[in-house]
Amino acid sequence: MEKLRKYMSARDEDQFYHQGAVELLVFNFLLILTILTIWLFKNHRFRFLHETGGAMVYGLVMGLIIQYATTPTNFESGTVYTCEKLKFGPPTVLVNITNQIYEYQYKREINQHNVNAHQGNAMLQKMTFDPSIFFNVLLPPIIFHAGYSLKKRHFFRNLGSILTYAFLGTAISCIVIGLIMYGFVKAMIHVGQLKGGDFHFTDCLFFGSLMSATDPVTVLAIFHELHVDTDLYTLLFGESVLNDAVAIVLTYSISVYSPKENPNTFDAAAFFQSVWNFLGIFAGSFAMGSSYAVVTALISFIHLTKFTKLCEFPMLETGLFFLLSWSAFLSAEAAGLTGIVAVLFCGVTQAHYTYNNLSPDSKMRTKQLFEFMNFLAENVIFCYMGLALFTFQNHIFNALFIFGAFVAIFIARACNIYPLSFILNLGRKQKIPRNFQHMMMFSGLRGAIAFALAIRDTESQPKQMMFTTTLLIVFFTVWVFGGGTMAMLTWLQIRVGIDPDEDLKAETASQRATTADKNTTKAESAWLFRIWYGFDHKYLKPILTHAGPPLTTTLPEWCNPIARLLTSPKAYGEPLKDDDRDCIVNNDELTINYEAPNPVPVLAQARIDSPQTPGKENIHEGDLGLGGCELHLEHTPAQTQLNSLA
Amino acid sequence: MEKLRKYMSARDEDQFYHQGAVELLVFNFLLILTILTIWLFKNHRFRFLHETGGAMVYGLVMGLIIQYATTPTNFESGTVYTCEKLKFGPPTVLVNITNQIYEYQYKREINQHNVNAHQGNAMLQKMTFDPSIFFNVLLPPIIFHAGYSLKKRHFFRNLGSILTYAFLGTAISCIVIGLIMYGFVKAMIHVGQLKGGDFHFTDCLFFGSLMSATDPVTVLAIFHELHVDTDLYTLLFGESVLNDAVAIVLTYSISVYSPKENPNTFDAAAFFQSVWNFLGIFAGSFAMGSSYAVVTALISFIHLTKFTKLCEFPMLETGLFFLLSWSAFLSAEAAGLTGIVAVLFCGVTQAHYTYNNLSPDSKMRTKQLFEFMNFLAENVIFCYMGLALFTFQNHIFNALFIFGAFVAIFIARACNIYPLSFILNLGRKQKIPRNFQHMMMFSGLRGAIAFALAIRDTESQPKQMMFTTTLLIVFFTVWVFGGGTMAMLTWLQIRVGIDPDEDLKAETASQRATTADKNTTKAESAWLFRIWYGFDHKYLKPILTHAGPPLTTTLPEWCNPIARLLTSPKAYGEPLKDDDRDCIVNNDELTINYEAPNPVPVLAQARIDSPQTPGKENIHEGDLGLGGCELHLEHTPAQTQLNSLA
Repeated sequence: MEKLRKYMSARDEDQFYHQGAVELLVFNFLLILTILTIWLFKNHRFRFLHETGGAMVYGLVMGLIIQYATTPTNFESGTVYTCEKLKFGPPTVLVNITNQIYEYQYKREINQHNVNAHQGNAMLQKMTFDPSIFFNVLLPPIIFHAGYSLKKRHFFRNLGSILTYAFLGTAISCIVIGLIMYGFVKAMIHVGQLKGGDFHFTDCLFFGSLMSATDPVTVLAIFHELHVDTDLYTLLFGESVLNDAVAIVLTYSISVYSPKENPNTFDAAAFFQSVWNFLGIFAGSFAMGSSYAVVTALISFIHLTKFTKLCEFPMLETGLFFLLSWSAFLSAEAAGLTGIVAVLFCGVTQAHYTYNNLSPDSKMRTKQLFEFMNFLAENVIFCYMGLALFTFQNHIFNALFIFGAFVAIFIARACNIYPLSFILNLGRKQKIPRNFQHMMMFSGLRGAIAFALAIRDTESQPKQMMFTTTLLIVFFTVWVFGGGTMAMLTWLQIRVGIDPDEDLKAETASQRATTADKNTTKAESAWLFRIWYGFDHKYLKPILTHAGPPLTTTLPEWCNPIARLLTSPKAYGEPLKDDDRDCIVNNDELTINYEAPNPVPVLAQARIDSPQTPGKENIHEGDLGLGGCELHLEHTPAQTQLNSLA
Repeated sequence: MEKLRKYMSARDEDQFYHQGAVELLVFNFLLILTILTIWLFKNHRFRFLHETGGAMVYGLVMGLIIQYATTPTNFESGTVYTCEKLKFGPPTVLVNITNQIYEYQYKREINQHNVNAHQGNAMLQKMTFDPSIFFNVLLPPIIFHAGYSLKKRHFFRNLGSILTYAFLGTAISCIVIGLIMYGFVKAMIHVGQLKGGDFHFTDCLFFGSLMSATDPVTVLAIFHELHVDTDLYTLLFGESVLNDAVAIVLTYSISVYSPKENPNTFDAAAFFQSVWNFLGIFAGSFAMGSSYAVVTALISFIHLTKFTKLCEFPMLETGLFFLLSWSAFLSAEAAGLTGIVAVLFCGVTQAHYTYNNLSPDSKMRTKQLFEFMNFLAENVIFCYMGLALFTFQNHIFNALFIFGAFVAIFIARACNIYPLSFILNLGRKQKIPRNFQHMMMFSGLRGAIAFALAIRDTESQPKQMMFTTTLLIVFFTVWVFGGGTMAMLTWLQIRVGIDPDEDLKAETASQRATTADKNTTKAESAWLFRIWYGFDHKYLKPILTHAGPPLTTTLPEWCNPIARLLTSPKAYGEPLKDDDRDCIVNNDELTINYEAPNPVPVLAQARIDSPQTPGKENIHEGDLGLGGCELHLEHTPAQTQLNSLA
């Protein structure tokens, strides 16, 4: 009794302290090591290993150490207690143990065959994150950051191609991987490595959808550093960001596809239910994300028309921005939609509208904050992937399945890129050249999203096999393809070191030459986007930001009272000031052909103002470079924005 | 069976989504409301309600709504299951319920009499944070930020007084509150409101120690805005920051004081054990925190002496800074010390050394990052306090105890401030005037730390009574005292609107006048700090930063090889450059009298460079104000620092 009491009080004392301190310290230590390594690498211009690859290596080493250096401590954790009074698992259970009541919280459901894995190393168990952490804590900042930094002038020009790759390409990839894997699964059943009935076609499709989320973070980092052709960068970046969203919703839709009878037969009703799910969730998340961003834009816009000025308090502005963006995620989750997708479109919309309304200080703060969160979250995930190879207890390594998966992802990537590029080139003025297509094919790396989707459910044996395979594919693609990017760029003779300014000057010069045939330029972008652009420029931008023409000139006569109410006094008072024209032109090239009577010299001028020297932080430069311009920043938000986000 | 299956699959589906989304959304919503309210208030220069007070009001309203608008949903959560096989509560329990195995995680121990409270509103249960969240997630950024922004030139001048108030004052306050409460408890037992034997003197002391943590965040915000006398500001701020650390360690030491026999008698051995605990934990946490900061300073310093430059990558620098500071917290927790105290001293040391080595970009980033985290965490805590009044299920409102607590905190505050001020005034050249003493007495607000200490343990009835009382005291002091700050300032005729520059000019003028009698100035600061300053300036600063004289001149002749190795080439190459002198002078006034031959004009010049216009962000101004100076920022880190941290 005395001993027990002592044990209890020791427990209480422990509780007084932080429970997960040691485990978090391990992660901190790994991240610090990673940062120091990156620093060293950057210093030596060593580009074969990206920070994420480095984080994985350290995670792997740490996993190895924990696996073999710590002794297994096992106290009754494998025993299963039977409770006959309950019909289902309540959220909390109160257990009376030697007259002391303990509260236990529901954690998860465990399959019978996984119970044994629970015996064993306590340290390994502690180092295992709850899979929901990835989707609720680590991924949102990464995805939001991607959306928030997506606003590039080249993005909208290539929007059609990007959407094609992201939607059609992901669907193709999912189906191709699913079909190939189904063939391999049949072979495995034939060989006797797998029981029939365990692994359905829907499981293969599930694997196909999660494997379709590409994450070429390593490649993009190198592209950014070397100033590779902007169109190629934009195509890859845009595709990878949007295809994450598609893959996540697709994975969910497939996972809830449950045919009533035999899972091997096709059930049309369930299939259309899934398609409906996909469309509903995607559209709902899109609407949720962008509406929160619109609210943010409106709130931060008020200060221009009314007496108050939120931009005088950058801390409040940043706080509001952060909280509303997070709310987009939470609302989507609470409504049964996909938070990640909501947060992505929230980020895009925030960058398109709200960013223009923020004070210069808040622009920096928000950008730096999300950049920082992205940096930490990304490295934690990749670190964890390295760890997971050793700490995850239910790995199923199946050589045939792994081989099949490797074959499948290459074929699927090829079926995605080459045919779609061919079709797109039929419509594009500026074709996607062969070497760009090869580079895109090569850049089909798998990363954080595929991992997070795979770890979300590792209960059944097929899912465990998928998880193991996903992990290996991530390792392979990040290290081998990521490390080979430089070699590939050289081999494919892709132009490197393009100065965006030079590019722009050449562009504007050619534009000046072709100003005469406006119609050809117009035809380059699809009619759908032209309509959207007109609408965005004429109505949305003036309502949500202080860029664009005053509403009074764009709305019909009888709307004047409302228009006057909604228009920023600045736009209203100085309808044709050069500064404003400037923003408009900077914000979207497509409008050049509609509004500005003679925009070309202004455009060139505005852009020469925003130099980009390689290897330096944009924000920092913006500060030094702009100098005296800072005083009339409020008039030219688009310019700062170009500096900061370009 | 069909129904159960459906229920199960609904559960699984739910798990696919974020579990706490709705609850987090409620908090987000409250914070957004708070931000909008603050914005409105700031706009109208309405200073009666600080943001934290506003957050509490919204929390209160939301608590009221949840309490009365949601219906209690109770499914068997009050039932206690008996398990005879176990001798103690294991960290996880596997329960077999209708052939499905669920994993349950250890949450906490519950007292028999609290079991009933578990029946009831599920929403209320969900809105209840795990108390460890306060100590492990919300408080660290607040405390670190306090430490990181503590570096004010007035702080070190008043260090003696601040330490006296913080250590001696907190001890006095703790004992006085403990004694008065013990009297009230005796009275309560006499009246029959309390059973004897429940409430020991140690419990009273425990209450006294947690009540001794003052948190005048409201008052300080107003002081900052109105530019109240800097000495008063520094005394209050310094006291409140350090007394948090003292109160936390004191509370822990008292809670582990366990006399062997009768808890009502004095046990000398146990008492000295507690004192030893206090000293050990305090010193250990101090050492842990500052050593991590020294490591950070050294790493960020390397770039000046060696080939690499970490400061070229502000993201890496910020990441390293953040991770190492967090590691200080985690290491202290893992070592059984107090993470909060470690993080406080880590912050102070980071500000003193590392900050000087950071690139200008990283200075901004780190400052803004911690400012932002502090802002969010503070408002979440105060919001939660409002909520807790309704959502906490085990409140014990005892009028006598609450009345006693109010009386006790006032008397204790008076016993702390007046006698100590009297003693301090005996030694101080610049006396603490009467009206300052009254203002300090008035500023004894209670806030986040007292609340977090009280909520950490709410199992026994005395602890629940303490928690309820603490909550009411926080409400009262924040609203009434916080709201009355303006009135009090006027009534006490405390000088307001002091321009720090004017203050400085006057100061330097008087200094110039008294340069002759150096010895008197010297005598003002205690000999201990003079020694520390000499040591810091001559040895630590040159090793850890690039400020200060080169080590070759300060170390004895035979140490030259080591000195040359450790000294930054900058300090070594340009030993007597004006810029360097400038930093030294700026960094610590005390050294003026030792080193600089004629520092006064330089000093005045340097300070006029850093204007402080009211109501604006420092960083923002620093950028605009410095302009061309930015190019030689590396030479004058202390100047930027003054701009940013002053």
